[in-house]
Amino acid sequence: MEKRIYNFSAGPAILPEEVLLEAQKEFFALPGVGMSILEISHRSKTFDAIHAEAKEGIKKLLNVPDDYAILFLQGGASLQFSMLALNLMHPKNKADYISTGSWSKKAIKEAKRVGNVNIAATTEEGEVDKKYFKRIPKQSELKLDPDASYVHFTSNNTIYGTQFHTEPEVGKVPLVCDASSDILHKKIDVTKYGLIYAGAQKNIGPSGVVLVIIRKDLLERSQDSLPTMLNYKIQAENDSLYNTPNTFGIYIIKLVTKHLLKLGGLDKMYEINKNKAKILHDTIDNSGGFYKGHAEKESRSLMNITFNLATADLEKKLIDEATKAGFSGLKGHRSVGGLRASIYNAFPTKGVEDLIVFMKDFQKRNG
Amino acid sequence: MEKRIYNFSAGPAILPEEVLLEAQKEFFALPGVGMSILEISHRSKTFDAIHAEAKEGIKKLLNVPDDYAILFLQGGASLQFSMLALNLMHPKNKADYISTGSWSKKAIKEAKRVGNVNIAATTEEGEVDKKYFKRIPKQSELKLDPDASYVHFTSNNTIYGTQFHTEPEVGKVPLVCDASSDILHKKIDVTKYGLIYAGAQKNIGPSGVVLVIIRKDLLERSQDSLPTMLNYKIQAENDSLYNTPNTFGIYIIKLVTKHLLKLGGLDKMYEINKNKAKILHDTIDNSGGFYKGHAEKESRSLMNITFNLATADLEKKLIDEATKAGFSGLKGHRSVGGLRASIYNAFPTKGVEDLIVFMKDFQKRNG
Repeated sequence: MEKRIYNFSAGPAILPEEVLLEAQKEFFALPGVGMSILEISHRSKTFDAIHAEAKEGIKKLLNVPDDYAILFLQGGASLQFSMLALNLMHPKNKADYISTGSWSKKAIKEAKRVGNVNIAATTEEGEVDKKYFKRIPKQSELKLDPDASYVHFTSNNTIYGTQFHTEPEVGKVPLVCDASSDILHKKIDVTKYGLIYAGAQKNIGPSGVVLVIIRKDLLERSQDSLPTMLNYKIQAENDSLYNTPNTFGIYIIKLVTKHLLKLGGLDKMYEINKNKAKILHDTIDNSGGFYKGHAEKESRSLMNITFNLATADLEKKLIDEATKAGFSGLKGHRSVGGLRASIYNAFPTKGVEDLIVFMKDFQKRNG
Repeated sequence: MEKRIYNFSAGPAILPEEVLLEAQKEFFALPGVGMSILEISHRSKTFDAIHAEAKEGIKKLLNVPDDYAILFLQGGASLQFSMLALNLMHPKNKADYISTGSWSKKAIKEAKRVGNVNIAATTEEGEVDKKYFKRIPKQSELKLDPDASYVHFTSNNTIYGTQFHTEPEVGKVPLVCDASSDILHKKIDVTKYGLIYAGAQKNIGPSGVVLVIIRKDLLERSQDSLPTMLNYKIQAENDSLYNTPNTFGIYIIKLVTKHLLKLGGLDKMYEINKNKAKILHDTIDNSGGFYKGHAEKESRSLMNITFNLATADLEKKLIDEATKAGFSGLKGHRSVGGLRASIYNAFPTKGVEDLIVFMKDFQKRNG
């Protein structure tokens, strides 16, 4: 068996080994079917069952109520930025956005092409030429329009390493969430949301599928004039099969959700995730300033741990040595520099523990 | 090794066994990388190389000139129906469409949401309540607008089993082609086209990727007001990496194009395809009317062979017996009934030969 390394990639990201091995085993021909998952019709009984299991997996893990549709679409969260605005801004033509990072800003940019955007809050702060998002805004900071079509927020910010630990309170206005980088990391109360969307490539599956969970009453906002593929109502009426979906991606989602259910569900996953983040955050906090966390403590993400060393040279040295030692993908996003350990659901605790040993040793040799 | 059957599915469709075996072998971890293709960043060097090889494969197979961009997008041909109209109708706001089947009609429907559509020709003919597309229009039938933004046609019609054997002549107006179901089945002269698009799931790879080949001067038509993900210019400037693409799909395209090049390229593939279609068409033609081809002879497709028996009952009997004998997916599309053998690039000649033996035997027993 080919040797695997510790993969801290921010996305596409690590998947459970059990899922990879199962998919590999039946890749050439699904048992009793005689064709590969890549080769079967999206309208076949075999795929129907796979698709149903994937939806059921999401439904069970997140306790999705029956008045929500579960869709698997294409184009990633980036196409959702446009699609959600095109569908949900109608008829008021205005929406609230909370800006907590680069992905929020991209969502805002696309929404502005559609209608009026009110920035309910932004945490882009700092000097003129070096602004960072180091925190999540407090509830008291939100300037919400009670008449908005919806309120949009990004639950986890991969680049800055910040995360909402509770949903913003938005009253009766539908809450819309880009949960691409922390979906399924813990249980959430889906009834608080109007729409949740998430590119699959961090916690759900491979790239090329985006999960959309939408409260069915919101489907009535979709206008017939929209491009058919961008119409939530039509996608829901056709159960994501208006055209050929990413069948392989949905198959992997089936395997990932089955794996999470077997593991004990999202409460168990959350426990594991909290512990992984805690031991790494503790290492940073207890390093006497050798490692400095980027995000403010109360806004820290459990998924992406961002930190710096004293100099860019030292950071480079650590990354080079870490890569040689089998820790891949620790370089921070080009917009903020430093280091980032993305430790999504599938990243093993053992990998974090081994990284901590490496970091402590690196500090000893360079502190 | 799991037993495989003969898969006549219209799409997602059969892939070369060599490709499946190679992908399976390195599915758990790419050699020397230590991560699965599903887990690597779309901005990594490993993926860069895979992406470059996939583009190079398409470029070599089709002799794509340097003034064309090769893109791998999401949303299938169905999203292209909207995207091409949104980008290319500008500024004239009108385009010509040749209607040869259900997919042409869907493309027309989406284009009408964007601007004015002139139906340059349609071959939807028959009685009032049973209209069929049995043929491709002759050049002399086309009522083209020399001032159109583009002329759109569907090169192969999966449902009706018809195919353009040469491109329509359209003068200086850019020719736009939905080649989803016959791309790579033979060499074409790309310089005749302004834009070619093709959902991958027949001849190129798995579902969830759509290939777009676009002449670069046409990128100037893309307006800044478009949703970013639907803007060809931005997708081309970002080399399909504005957001995370379907990385796994692109990887399979790399393997499929490599396989086709190794086989001898598209001239060799065309020879094989012509022979496969010929022996099956001959069987139908020489059956003394037991099997009746659906499409008119000169419009017949090499990819989808559609035919009928005397009664729907007899058709059902054949399909049931064929399924038991290991021939899957022979049922015609629900809109036309009858039988359909989809014999795309990867479908083996041996499978067609075995089907012919079966069909002759079935005729002997039921003729």
